[in-house]
Amino acid sequence: MNIQDEVDYVSGRTRVFGIVGHPIEQVRSPEMFTAEFRRRGCDAILVPLHVLPDDFDAALPQLLRVQNLDGLVFTIPFKARACAVAGELGREARVVGAINALGRGAAQRWRGEIFDGLGCVEAFRRRGIPFGDKRVMLLGAGGAGSAIAVAISTERPASLRIFDVDAERARSLAAKVALASPGVAVEAGPPTVEGIDILLNASPVGMLGDARLPMNVATLPRDLVVFDAIVMPEQTPLLALAEQSGCTTVLGREMMRGQISRMTDFFLAGI
Amino acid sequence: MNIQDEVDYVSGRTRVFGIVGHPIEQVRSPEMFTAEFRRRGCDAILVPLHVLPDDFDAALPQLLRVQNLDGLVFTIPFKARACAVAGELGREARVVGAINALGRGAAQRWRGEIFDGLGCVEAFRRRGIPFGDKRVMLLGAGGAGSAIAVAISTERPASLRIFDVDAERARSLAAKVALASPGVAVEAGPPTVEGIDILLNASPVGMLGDARLPMNVATLPRDLVVFDAIVMPEQTPLLALAEQSGCTTVLGREMMRGQISRMTDFFLAGI
Repeated sequence: MNIQDEVDYVSGRTRVFGIVGHPIEQVRSPEMFTAEFRRRGCDAILVPLHVLPDDFDAALPQLLRVQNLDGLVFTIPFKARACAVAGELGREARVVGAINALGRGAAQRWRGEIFDGLGCVEAFRRRGIPFGDKRVMLLGAGGAGSAIAVAISTERPASLRIFDVDAERARSLAAKVALASPGVAVEAGPPTVEGIDILLNASPVGMLGDARLPMNVATLPRDLVVFDAIVMPEQTPLLALAEQSGCTTVLGREMMRGQISRMTDFFLAGI
Repeated sequence: MNIQDEVDYVSGRTRVFGIVGHPIEQVRSPEMFTAEFRRRGCDAILVPLHVLPDDFDAALPQLLRVQNLDGLVFTIPFKARACAVAGELGREARVVGAINALGRGAAQRWRGEIFDGLGCVEAFRRRGIPFGDKRVMLLGAGGAGSAIAVAISTERPASLRIFDVDAERARSLAAKVALASPGVAVEAGPPTVEGIDILLNASPVGMLGDARLPMNVATLPRDLVVFDAIVMPEQTPLLALAEQSGCTTVLGREMMRGQISRMTDFFLAGI
């Protein structure tokens, strides 16, 4: 059999992972996780699995019976519903009430966890910027913001202030975090950079063509560290202002890389 | 994002195919079909799906609800059971009572067909050797033999004689073929090369380390065409004898290539 009769990246021994979402064509996990598996010398592939919302509850338990399927990534609109499929939930997932990864544990018990926040923490760790003893301002208390608040709270910041255009959502998240991490001074309140060391944007303001800033400022303190969870564009209006102001910036793409790395650790731990 | 962060062979837009079997590690379809899809400029991948026999009936209908899954290959032990999953069966499948391919038709109605025999016919077609008006001797009336007998019978051979060590199995297959292709002179009987133009081995005799011939002969007529469905080894004892005797030989690997080509036509017709 000559060489062009076969590809070298999938065989009967390849372990299979999937990303489950609706729609599915826009996801980037297949090319990124598969590359990460290869870098780690693991014969595995992550494929897109387009599941309709009406099919989810019946299809998922059966997908998990495929013996060489070792893990799933969940994206919109399934992150909350997917909790029901997990045999056990990690700490972040229990507080946030959503998962974006399900892995076949060593005990063949499906474990769910959410890594959006852990990816942010990992990005800062790689930059050598600890959250410990820092005063943190978080903009946005939706899905990504919730996960980031929960993950950061375990890093023992001096304080965490949460803002959302929906004030009730910010208060509810602050209460959840206070319950989960009793040692952290957490509060909901308007956005500020006064007495803040790290500013995190987890709101959608600044995404794609949106030229707005997620808070009303003309300049930022030079010693502020500014992070934006937005991946597209790479340079958001907030990050542009931060660079003009001489701040250290951390990009959404760094969080994505951190997340893929932590999720791959999680997936491969069971194999 | 730099280049090693992503692979180029799977993305959110990739169409997914699978091979369903138990066990699964030995299958060759993933690397071979995926290469065929690429050759045809189709962004698709075929992955192994290890389904346990006890899970098959519940899992298959759910797997078929994955919207970007366009087809499945079935291997041992599911070829017969998989008929129940198909919304409609092709001609070969109806006669043989088994399928090895299930494709999402243009009408979103899952169509099943078996291509083992069609692959053999395709291999001969590529060699420019027609079955029309030929006298054919077939050794082996199991799964592969059945599919080959059914496919050949539609090519209007002058006659088809079927032998199996289980005489009842040979008689039963001959009766099925006679019913499906009334114009063909088909019979069950002992192996012979007297008055035969094409000799086909679809029995497992000669596979792997087996040094036996599937029929008791010391030499073969020079003008006989000899085919062996066995893929491993490429050169079976029967084919070695055929070459010594000056016969034209057709290899199991050619049938496999023919089958992959015909199955890919079938799979992509629905997309």
